[in-house]
Amino acid sequence: MALLVTKFGGTSVGTLERIKNVAMRLKDMKNQGHDVVAVVSAMGDTTDELIDLARLTGDNLSPREMDMLLATGEQQSAALVALTLQNLGCDAISLTGWQAGIKSDDKHSKARISGIDTTRIKEELAKGRIVVVAGFQGISPEGDITTLGRGGSDTTAVAIAAALQADRCLIFTDVDGVYTADPRIVPQARKLDQISYEEMLEMASLGAGVLQSRSVEFAMLYGVDIEVLSSFENKPGTLVTEVSNMEKQRIVSGVAGDKNCVRFALFDVPDVPGIAMKIFKALARENINVDMIIQSAMRDNRNDIAFTIEQDDLKKAIPVVEKVVQEISASGYSYTDEVAKVSIVGAGMQTNPGVAAAMFEALAEENINIHMISTSEIKVSCVIDEKELEKAVRALHKKFELDKA
Amino acid sequence: MALLVTKFGGTSVGTLERIKNVAMRLKDMKNQGHDVVAVVSAMGDTTDELIDLARLTGDNLSPREMDMLLATGEQQSAALVALTLQNLGCDAISLTGWQAGIKSDDKHSKARISGIDTTRIKEELAKGRIVVVAGFQGISPEGDITTLGRGGSDTTAVAIAAALQADRCLIFTDVDGVYTADPRIVPQARKLDQISYEEMLEMASLGAGVLQSRSVEFAMLYGVDIEVLSSFENKPGTLVTEVSNMEKQRIVSGVAGDKNCVRFALFDVPDVPGIAMKIFKALARENINVDMIIQSAMRDNRNDIAFTIEQDDLKKAIPVVEKVVQEISASGYSYTDEVAKVSIVGAGMQTNPGVAAAMFEALAEENINIHMISTSEIKVSCVIDEKELEKAVRALHKKFELDKA
Repeated sequence: MALLVTKFGGTSVGTLERIKNVAMRLKDMKNQGHDVVAVVSAMGDTTDELIDLARLTGDNLSPREMDMLLATGEQQSAALVALTLQNLGCDAISLTGWQAGIKSDDKHSKARISGIDTTRIKEELAKGRIVVVAGFQGISPEGDITTLGRGGSDTTAVAIAAALQADRCLIFTDVDGVYTADPRIVPQARKLDQISYEEMLEMASLGAGVLQSRSVEFAMLYGVDIEVLSSFENKPGTLVTEVSNMEKQRIVSGVAGDKNCVRFALFDVPDVPGIAMKIFKALARENINVDMIIQSAMRDNRNDIAFTIEQDDLKKAIPVVEKVVQEISASGYSYTDEVAKVSIVGAGMQTNPGVAAAMFEALAEENINIHMISTSEIKVSCVIDEKELEKAVRALHKKFELDKA
Repeated sequence: MALLVTKFGGTSVGTLERIKNVAMRLKDMKNQGHDVVAVVSAMGDTTDELIDLARLTGDNLSPREMDMLLATGEQQSAALVALTLQNLGCDAISLTGWQAGIKSDDKHSKARISGIDTTRIKEELAKGRIVVVAGFQGISPEGDITTLGRGGSDTTAVAIAAALQADRCLIFTDVDGVYTADPRIVPQARKLDQISYEEMLEMASLGAGVLQSRSVEFAMLYGVDIEVLSSFENKPGTLVTEVSNMEKQRIVSGVAGDKNCVRFALFDVPDVPGIAMKIFKALARENINVDMIIQSAMRDNRNDIAFTIEQDDLKKAIPVVEKVVQEISASGYSYTDEVAKVSIVGAGMQTNPGVAAAMFEALAEENINIHMISTSEIKVSCVIDEKELEKAVRALHKKFELDKA
């Protein structure tokens, strides 16, 4: 008997028929003697439909009110899953984020979980109930409803698994695991049986789209084993866990492409201490995540700074950058969203020199120009033209022989 | 400057266009210097759509989960009204029932407000904000979301008005006030400028449909002046308040018809003390409201008992009645929903004998058979065949000359 925390995304609960499948799977787990918590997203396009509705009220969409509106999507699907379970003769109860004790900061629309009071969940589990929790949401210190941002239901699930010291966190999704590359781009891509937290983290932050980064960070921090698996097929998925010896041998585990990328360039930035801080502090204040940063070689005590952000943040970023450019007396700025990021990820990279060089070589062979480069211990990323992305992913997948087991 | 609590029903917030009208009216009130609280229902058919969705999960719809599901409708409309106000340049905040401090008992789907903690509402008003509260919902002592039943948003508004000692509670609806009879049935029906709590209470409980009874009880108990008025036209409505001298002169204020009525008959009930208690206690235990009760003349120490309930409660009532019939050794029972209730209401009735007689005469003149009669100090009700209802309403409106001011 184990304590399992499961998570079902919007596609998995997209229709009442699919909700019935989800309920059947949960019932099976319960019948096998497990304690079961299920975290659910909003049904299908509910969140997008609510956003469209809100847009009709005007352009000024305060995050506090948007969270109030959007949190209803998960509340509805949680109640419907609980009703379906009850109709299958299975005792169940749905809880909103705040009822499940999910506490967050007050950064509406991008809130971070600050703690979980598991009292209510434990009480309900002790009654033999399947506990269905509305994902993606929490409550701020002021008692306002917050949302954790897109993909926040993953984080809810992993955080609950950590707080309950669950045996495993099962993330059911519309893909059946983590692949060496997007199979839609690379038909030879293979499903990985296992991947380390660090690798998954890089994959997630690179837009591989299977798990939200924050959820992987949580899992790594608290040692939660995550299994990513299909909600439609009954077969093993990919286990995200501590890196194993076997896995360490693999130099490159996967190739990820990310189109959700905008590149800003600031021209002729004075070369004075504290200037970079000014730019990035201003962006941080608006909750804009900056990904890569490149500072070009100095020339006449002035230099150019380039950085990338997510496309969602573009509208917020423009006035911030505009203001900073004036404040620091840069000569101007530009931005483009016709760029993309391609990355290779692998825990074995740290002990194998020459991986980055092989990557640049593969891109050069395809005549793909590299605009920016950034590296970490287990990852190399290049910003390239968006139109070259698929070609780049295929070339790298081949170069590192990822189709071979 | 006054403190106004307003309420807008589902039709008034049925579309984004209508929500904009609501927001304009609220903004006008605020600009006139008033403090404004707005209680809103779910948009249009949202509640019915959610119920339809829930029915697809099976027949067993636990009230606790249904409340969880349905409460999202008002949360959504509250957020959308707040967003619209903000887009009109008006500071506003939406609150769920629990955020607004609406405490209730745990009778899911029919919960009663047990108290209001106005701390948060007062804080937000003090910041100069229009406070938009999700109607129809509260929180149980266990921390579960409850709903107050159909029309519960009226009760939310009046209860908040009472708790805040508001100057007036404005109930905006799709009719422009309280009429002497339903204008769709009686074209000569007149709008009343004023009506007493007691009269309104009888009207409401008789299905006149303008205000929920519970909200009128609250208003009477706490002396809250309610104005019922149109959300589409800008003109005075009907004031529901303490009875005035002028109003006391009016013998009959209105005629109400109610089709939401099921009549049960229990045959050959033993004439033993405590038998009636058994029947009605069993129904009360299931939260079924019994309206009229008639016990026919005794015959061989056995007699027939008839009573009426609302149609919504029929499904719940049948097994209860079935069980009681066996327990008390009655010979059987029957029920029909092909009946309706027609009533005359008037505060002046108490001091004017012969009103009931005039009513029976009017019905007799139209050849309408009376199945059950019940009277209170300010009301006479008759159960008749449902198909005769409109004819009865018209006859009574004419008999008591309600078309004349």
